[in-house]
Amino acid sequence: MKQIIIPLPPFQRGFHLITRIIEQQLPSLPEAGLLNLFIQHTSAGLAINENADPLVRHDLESTFNKLIPENQPWYRHNSEGSDDMPAHTKSLITGTSVNIPIVHKKLGLGTWQGIYLCEFRNHAGSRTIVATVID
Amino acid sequence: MKQIIIPLPPFQRGFHLITRIIEQQLPSLPEAGLLNLFIQHTSAGLAINENADPLVRHDLESTFNKLIPENQPWYRHNSEGSDDMPAHTKSLITGTSVNIPIVHKKLGLGTWQGIYLCEFRNHAGSRTIVATVID
Amino acid sequence: MKQIIIPLPPFQRGFHLITRIIEQQLPSLPEAGLLNLFIQHTSAGLAINENADPLVRHDLESTFNKLIPENQPWYRHNSEGSDDMPAHTKSLITGTSVNIPIVHKKLGLGTWQGIYLCEFRNHAGSRTIVATVID
Repeated sequence: MKQIIIPLPPFQRGFHLITRIIEQQLPSLPEAGLLNLFIQHTSAGLAINENADPLVRHDLESTFNKLIPENQPWYRHNSEGSDDMPAHTKSLITGTSVNIPIVHKKLGLGTWQGIYLCEFRNHAGSRTIVATVID
Repeated sequence: MKQIIIPLPPFQRGFHLITRIIEQQLPSLPEAGLLNLFIQHTSAGLAINENADPLVRHDLESTFNKLIPENQPWYRHNSEGSDDMPAHTKSLITGTSVNIPIVHKKLGLGTWQGIYLCEFRNHAGSRTIVATVID
Repeated sequence: MKQIIIPLPPFQRGFHLITRIIEQQLPSLPEAGLLNLFIQHTSAGLAINENADPLVRHDLESTFNKLIPENQPWYRHNSEGSDDMPAHTKSLITGTSVNIPIVHKKLGLGTWQGIYLCEFRNHAGSRTIVATVID
């Protein structure tokens, strides 16, 4: 069992590929195991999705904004700005954690898979991830 | 590896903070590890979200009801009431399981994070969670 | 720690119960533990949901198609067909991985729970799952 804290630099609102940032900070990985990445925030999320075409991330941002719109009259938690409550909802939908198998000392991602930071706030600071390696 | 069953008391339909209920029943935690909580039901979910303002839970309930409405003409699984099929869909979206890193013998939640029971049925009974501690 | 690759046969677009397929290929399970199933694709997902009534799977397919419609004018990633970008979004919402506790050498699923392959492409080939057993 190895566990490290990975501080991310601040990112703009949107979906961002962070596979390289994560891989560069991971300790040496076991022959077989499981990596859990957990983001310690309630207005951002982690996910696995397409790693090649930036337009996928663009379309995810557009689609999530249509799905969970801002400024709805039924929102009551809105003291921190119009992006606040939608950010909590989007975070709940994407989830705060991903699990990735470790296969032959590497992340067992499929050919087209990458790790995403889903940043749902307009002006977020840096986010903190706890990485736990189970062997 | 430790594993226990955590029976929850019945909750009303809605999003509920259950961090204290879970923590009170967990066994002693290792210095570093991972906690998996798994709810053994298909019309409720588990999630991590904001722990401070009850209005966040209120707005999540409103938003999920708008997102996955009841009484849609295309529903065919509706023998158990109008809340039944939406409950399955919401459960699939939130997920049945959360993973939380264990850091220095405590849950490694962020400052604003709590554990949610997402109860999607109008008149649900008690729900059962399997808690697995990996070290 | 045991890890195996489970190749699935091709499935039609929709939500499919694959509990038996998974169980038949799993190695012998420990008294207590955790199973992680990870799908190495970005246009399909894994989930846990109702195992009894096929109409639940039918209604999930209808609901997801309403929630994440095809042919929206704001999609920019659309070179692989109208089902492509929605498939990525649906995969992000369902998630690529499920964790199931292992209880008394069996999967600790609830009475009504089963493992779902969520196939979001119209003409997908076979999908690959990495199964990791932690004890």
